[in-house]
Amino acid sequence: MSLKVVIIGGGSSYTPEIIEGLIKRYETFPVSDVVLVDVDAGKEKLEIIGGLADRMIEKSGKPIRLSWTLDRKKALEGADFVSTQIRVGGLEAREKDERIPLRHGYVGQETNGAGGIFKAFRTIPVLLDIAKDVHDICPHAWIINFTNPAGIITEAVLKHSPHQKVIGVCNIPFNMRHSTAEILHVAPADVKIEFVGMNHFVFGKKVYVKGVDRTREVLHKLADEKLDYSPANIVSLGWSKTFIESIGLLPNPYHQYYFQTKKVLEKDVQAFQDNGTRAEVVQELEKSLFALYSNPDLAEKPKQLEERGGAFYSDVACSLMDSIYNDREDVQTVNTLNHGAIPDLPDDCVIEVNSVITKHGPRPIASGRLPRVICGIVSHMKAFEELVVQAGVTGDYSDAYAAMVMNPLVADEADSKVLLDELLEAHREFLPQFTSENLKRGVQS
Amino acid sequence: MSLKVVIIGGGSSYTPEIIEGLIKRYETFPVSDVVLVDVDAGKEKLEIIGGLADRMIEKSGKPIRLSWTLDRKKALEGADFVSTQIRVGGLEAREKDERIPLRHGYVGQETNGAGGIFKAFRTIPVLLDIAKDVHDICPHAWIINFTNPAGIITEAVLKHSPHQKVIGVCNIPFNMRHSTAEILHVAPADVKIEFVGMNHFVFGKKVYVKGVDRTREVLHKLADEKLDYSPANIVSLGWSKTFIESIGLLPNPYHQYYFQTKKVLEKDVQAFQDNGTRAEVVQELEKSLFALYSNPDLAEKPKQLEERGGAFYSDVACSLMDSIYNDREDVQTVNTLNHGAIPDLPDDCVIEVNSVITKHGPRPIASGRLPRVICGIVSHMKAFEELVVQAGVTGDYSDAYAAMVMNPLVADEADSKVLLDELLEAHREFLPQFTSENLKRGVQS
Amino acid sequence: MSLKVVIIGGGSSYTPEIIEGLIKRYETFPVSDVVLVDVDAGKEKLEIIGGLADRMIEKSGKPIRLSWTLDRKKALEGADFVSTQIRVGGLEAREKDERIPLRHGYVGQETNGAGGIFKAFRTIPVLLDIAKDVHDICPHAWIINFTNPAGIITEAVLKHSPHQKVIGVCNIPFNMRHSTAEILHVAPADVKIEFVGMNHFVFGKKVYVKGVDRTREVLHKLADEKLDYSPANIVSLGWSKTFIESIGLLPNPYHQYYFQTKKVLEKDVQAFQDNGTRAEVVQELEKSLFALYSNPDLAEKPKQLEERGGAFYSDVACSLMDSIYNDREDVQTVNTLNHGAIPDLPDDCVIEVNSVITKHGPRPIASGRLPRVICGIVSHMKAFEELVVQAGVTGDYSDAYAAMVMNPLVADEADSKVLLDELLEAHREFLPQFTSENLKRGVQS
Amino acid sequence: MSLKVVIIGGGSSYTPEIIEGLIKRYETFPVSDVVLVDVDAGKEKLEIIGGLADRMIEKSGKPIRLSWTLDRKKALEGADFVSTQIRVGGLEAREKDERIPLRHGYVGQETNGAGGIFKAFRTIPVLLDIAKDVHDICPHAWIINFTNPAGIITEAVLKHSPHQKVIGVCNIPFNMRHSTAEILHVAPADVKIEFVGMNHFVFGKKVYVKGVDRTREVLHKLADEKLDYSPANIVSLGWSKTFIESIGLLPNPYHQYYFQTKKVLEKDVQAFQDNGTRAEVVQELEKSLFALYSNPDLAEKPKQLEERGGAFYSDVACSLMDSIYNDREDVQTVNTLNHGAIPDLPDDCVIEVNSVITKHGPRPIASGRLPRVICGIVSHMKAFEELVVQAGVTGDYSDAYAAMVMNPLVADEADSKVLLDELLEAHREFLPQFTSENLKRGVQS
Repeated sequence: MSLKVVIIGGGSSYTPEIIEGLIKRYETFPVSDVVLVDVDAGKEKLEIIGGLADRMIEKSGKPIRLSWTLDRKKALEGADFVSTQIRVGGLEAREKDERIPLRHGYVGQETNGAGGIFKAFRTIPVLLDIAKDVHDICPHAWIINFTNPAGIITEAVLKHSPHQKVIGVCNIPFNMRHSTAEILHVAPADVKIEFVGMNHFVFGKKVYVKGVDRTREVLHKLADEKLDYSPANIVSLGWSKTFIESIGLLPNPYHQYYFQTKKVLEKDVQAFQDNGTRAEVVQELEKSLFALYSNPDLAEKPKQLEERGGAFYSDVACSLMDSIYNDREDVQTVNTLNHGAIPDLPDDCVIEVNSVITKHGPRPIASGRLPRVICGIVSHMKAFEELVVQAGVTGDYSDAYAAMVMNPLVADEADSKVLLDELLEAHREFLPQFTSENLKRGVQS
Repeated sequence: MSLKVVIIGGGSSYTPEIIEGLIKRYETFPVSDVVLVDVDAGKEKLEIIGGLADRMIEKSGKPIRLSWTLDRKKALEGADFVSTQIRVGGLEAREKDERIPLRHGYVGQETNGAGGIFKAFRTIPVLLDIAKDVHDICPHAWIINFTNPAGIITEAVLKHSPHQKVIGVCNIPFNMRHSTAEILHVAPADVKIEFVGMNHFVFGKKVYVKGVDRTREVLHKLADEKLDYSPANIVSLGWSKTFIESIGLLPNPYHQYYFQTKKVLEKDVQAFQDNGTRAEVVQELEKSLFALYSNPDLAEKPKQLEERGGAFYSDVACSLMDSIYNDREDVQTVNTLNHGAIPDLPDDCVIEVNSVITKHGPRPIASGRLPRVICGIVSHMKAFEELVVQAGVTGDYSDAYAAMVMNPLVADEADSKVLLDELLEAHREFLPQFTSENLKRGVQS
Repeated sequence: MSLKVVIIGGGSSYTPEIIEGLIKRYETFPVSDVVLVDVDAGKEKLEIIGGLADRMIEKSGKPIRLSWTLDRKKALEGADFVSTQIRVGGLEAREKDERIPLRHGYVGQETNGAGGIFKAFRTIPVLLDIAKDVHDICPHAWIINFTNPAGIITEAVLKHSPHQKVIGVCNIPFNMRHSTAEILHVAPADVKIEFVGMNHFVFGKKVYVKGVDRTREVLHKLADEKLDYSPANIVSLGWSKTFIESIGLLPNPYHQYYFQTKKVLEKDVQAFQDNGTRAEVVQELEKSLFALYSNPDLAEKPKQLEERGGAFYSDVACSLMDSIYNDREDVQTVNTLNHGAIPDLPDDCVIEVNSVITKHGPRPIASGRLPRVICGIVSHMKAFEELVVQAGVTGDYSDAYAAMVMNPLVADEADSKVLLDELLEAHREFLPQFTSENLKRGVQS
Repeated sequence: MSLKVVIIGGGSSYTPEIIEGLIKRYETFPVSDVVLVDVDAGKEKLEIIGGLADRMIEKSGKPIRLSWTLDRKKALEGADFVSTQIRVGGLEAREKDERIPLRHGYVGQETNGAGGIFKAFRTIPVLLDIAKDVHDICPHAWIINFTNPAGIITEAVLKHSPHQKVIGVCNIPFNMRHSTAEILHVAPADVKIEFVGMNHFVFGKKVYVKGVDRTREVLHKLADEKLDYSPANIVSLGWSKTFIESIGLLPNPYHQYYFQTKKVLEKDVQAFQDNGTRAEVVQELEKSLFALYSNPDLAEKPKQLEERGGAFYSDVACSLMDSIYNDREDVQTVNTLNHGAIPDLPDDCVIEVNSVITKHGPRPIASGRLPRVICGIVSHMKAFEELVVQAGVTGDYSDAYAAMVMNPLVADEADSKVLLDELLEAHREFLPQFTSENLKRGVQS
């Protein structure tokens, strides 16, 4: 019996992790075929990754057939799972998402603020295309999306594609569980966190260790010992006792952008002056990673990959595929339709939520009304995300401006226009929905 | 280490089932102490059950200490789980709940219509008392309530008791899963049903077998082959193809009272004329069960118990205790707070819902908006239940009348008063909240 | 300047009332053109009414141009207001709506139960056609619909027509205000009632006289003195003190069908045996009305019209047109989109609600959560109405069955099918949406 | 017959306007008694105002009895209306609300940001005291609150006082209507605006002139001609075409603080350097106003009052009293309970909304879901306001910090603490709810 996984964005530096994950889970998730897919521009990388993956599989002794191709439609034939881990426009585009806002005194970040909006604008049309192909070619396949901004992208597909079998994943909840385990000196598997919110804006509401509520202790330690759990790719400033104890919730590292904006900006501006944008840092990192990957003696995921920031992303994806395949009914944290799980948010929006994973998809666990203290900001962020999805689909200038000006990290009437116009211009080739007509209308107004 | 289970209503004929369940699960749920508690009037039965339970445990060889007592407070000391399976007023009261409405041409049933309302009215004060004791004496204990009407009683405790660790259970979802497995010739463990609604008014929205959606097939078979899955204690008329296919959901046997009212009434009236009320039938059944139980050679749950209608109730309760104790995170169907799982119903009401079972309680799985076809009737029933809880707590005549006249099985302005007054009079000794002042006000108006 | 009113169903016996209303309001609502429109089958009546209306206008001395026609499209040219007061299938159809359910032991009534469902099914396609014509020909015109079931029909247009300028009216709120004024011996203009609910299922929540809350007094008098305020066309049984005081709200006469079903049925069955259906009574009444109308000496609305049941319907419609035309911002009770006015009901459904009347339409006044006691039944009825709208548009057999079985006056699984099949057959010529294919599928299943 | 109005904060420079309003409306609102009440610290001003008011009334020839007193309880006896226009801590406190945030680079404004939070904290306990007195002494009286932040204060009373007859008013909607009339060259009375949102965060959704929708035209003119309609007391920067056309709504002047924060800050900092805080400017203005008022020849409201920023505030209050007294059922824009009028916001919060004014209070007009573009920010602001109300009542440090950090104009984790601690210290004497225990806990953490 065949079990086929297609990895779109197969030339990504993360791919060795997903290959490792598939090998590791072979007993319960006996994948027979893996196809790596990428676009023309990524051909070279794809081949390097293909070679490494081949060596990894061979070394493992598992009977997995591997291939790589630029022909996405062909690759999708008979697929059971399709993972999407793409970067439209590559690191060059990311570099612009970071640099342009920073230049105007705004957070320049891959998934937040003006940069995050444009990453979404570039990615939405491509993911909708992929979802359409999947729907036509392998309608039973699940798309596991870990392309950022993962929540927004997943919502765009769920709202605008006929293909409804899509789940978004992120490593932040995974990291928060692991860091909490470290803080408490317990095994990660014993830690459960009740998450509320959205991707990159998720809070931990309760921490249970073997079923016992230890939330207060974690909050206390987070505050007191200035512990934090930021991934490699973003700043790490720690949280004050006052903040932690007043909100009574575990923030995630991305919350620094919203509640420590000035300090983050300072640090990012400094880092930018020292090393260029994070994109440029990553470009260097990638270069050295691919140099490693090219080594014909390497047959495993190199340690250095963990510095990349997205560590465990693929591991999370593999766990999810395994649970779907085996109809496990275990609880994982994914991006899926709300359906009332957070009654304060629209039923049809995507949230990041603990869900029971079954063969027919994730079932979100209801957590009741949002904690009062975050109800406003979470509603705000969700509504903002909905504006991004809308603009990402219509390509309408006013919609895009609305998203920009309603983002709490931008908010300024005049600068919203400046950022919008500059980014539209900079990313023009990757924004087919923003037709020249729309652009012209926008620029003139 | 001790693990103590207190069974309130320990003299119930169902108790051998729960004892059997505890023995069966001993490896994973190593209960050290079981105390059976009952009231004065049940002393004789309590001793018979105590004896049988003793023999069952002895035969099993498990090191479980068993005792029985009329002193509830004493029994609760150090308890970890408290199961409640009581019948306030005994089968005599049930007999009135059935006979009085029937005499006026209305459904006379233990958990539905006028009878169900009064079973709630009698039980609510007693369960609130028990919950208070638990809160004072063993605040960490979970109450597993299978006293009917289980959903309403659980809601009364969650709304009006400081003790919030209470879960309601029922065997109907269990039975529906098992009957569906029979219909499909598959193992019950492979069948998952997505339930929506409330206790005794729950519908099956989707049927999955090993994760595959087989809902249409089950509906088809239910309709075509006139299969049904009523428990022993209620009528079984089958469902028409038109009904099943139009609503597109699995009804539960109690829905017959609402959608086949006339036929049910006819059959019940006939049965009444032939055998008296169901209460009287059960009284006979109980008599013979207790005769069996008294046999000093009997050391296991006798087969005949399954005719009693509540079969598997206790098994469901044991599974639940086991999952809480072990923080299993498995999915079980229980009565718990909505919290948005069904966004059409109030957040703070109790629904019967698939939930993830953890050491810190059940977490309901969100299922989104109710199917349109049942949205009205389910909202109606839930609002009715809320009126029952309200009246059961206040003892206010108007509240009680409101509950009666808003019950779809009664609805009549004049007969509501007749039924209310007659039942208030008949059950007077078990309705302390309906003070004579309230009663007088009611009767005069 | 022209101000044109088109009366669709102009041959109705109610038309003289609307003509009288227009004459009476001429100073503030200076209508220049009135066109009466009817269908072929109503040609004779149309001419009689046309003649009478002509004489009424002539006598009034107002410069109103009157004409009548069978050409609806032509009539609509340049219209400002379009009133719709039609009866698809005529009184013959109504007679079936009443007789068929009665024969099976169910309420047979024009706007409730099985009969009401079929009146909706016959009317929805015709009103959608009219709305389409209005949208194409006179898009600025307001449709004032007093075709029953007025709430359901209005909702069907608002949900399924591009023409959104439609308002439903009914005389029940008007009558309730006037009867309340009589009960309190005050002027009707001084009485305000806060209404909650839907057309023919509306309750009075508060009664204010000159701004002073006199609700308790009205409830007391209603209960004590057995006063009621039923219109001519439906039974009048009065309400018990217990009912009135327990719900604490003013019921409307149609609530008798729901809370006094047995008595209503008895009375209706008796009336049926004595006089035939209400439709047949009305047919006689109409015959004599038209005999009066034909009298060339008659130049005013005859007193006898008030026996017809719909008295003041047209007066309510004229008031509404006047307030729209003059942008009065006064408060009237109409059927319009909820928009949150009753937060328990869907935003996009139609409710009967006090609204501020402006040139751009009615703006419903928010009344907050429904009184707890009626929350269930009102939600039920609204959901039922939504099923009727759905089935009335799709012509789907399952949808129609769902509406029937979820109507609280039917509810029975088997009889729902019997009633549905018989009524579908009886009204076949007026149900184009229920194609023979649907019917066949329905009958066989 | 007596009709008594008590003006709390009677020594305010605005009082002459309210006196003028009462004189002007005497025919329809025949006030017999006016009592001006103030606190010790305001005694001198109270006497000046009392003298002027006396001369105004005398000149008018209306038989209105006027008195002034420091004894609030005495003054309330027999009151029908109580207007509240107080400034706890006086302009000295306001000066701190403006200066302290400005010094840290944040907006320093009376009703927004950190300053607005503290104005609320100082005012809530006093208004709750007043409401308690009213409830005890003259329970039928309506409180017309125009003490800022008017929406938050009104919500605090409605949520935490037994006295529910309270309405908040503001001149912003009045000004927006008048400015819009100017823009369109029409009479203000012909302009209706559909408002959505909260006090000082209200948007105009639709503009109707004599019932005709002219929203697009107003938006166009606002954008094109750089028109705006800021009151005297806040900056006026105008809005860009892009902003106005993208949101498609009329912003109010206070929105500049949120969408033009940087420019506002620059301007405010400049103004501060030039003239000191607005509070200081106003202090000067007040000084010269009171010099004018003291002139024994002055017997009317001087023109100069309009420069004060709150112009028309009192006029709005007088209109409201008149409509309540006469049960007018006209539409006015007030701060009252939501009740579903904006379904996206909690039912029990206060919104600024067009309402039908009756003798029994305002009835908000439902406007349906918020426009998508502002849904997030409005939800955010409302949730923030709820945190302010909570903290203003509990005096809890964490609650206060939560309000500060969740205010979009502050947001910064560290600076929130700095601002909070400094403002708590600065206003200590007017914050009885923030006990020293709370403060200590706060400062230490």
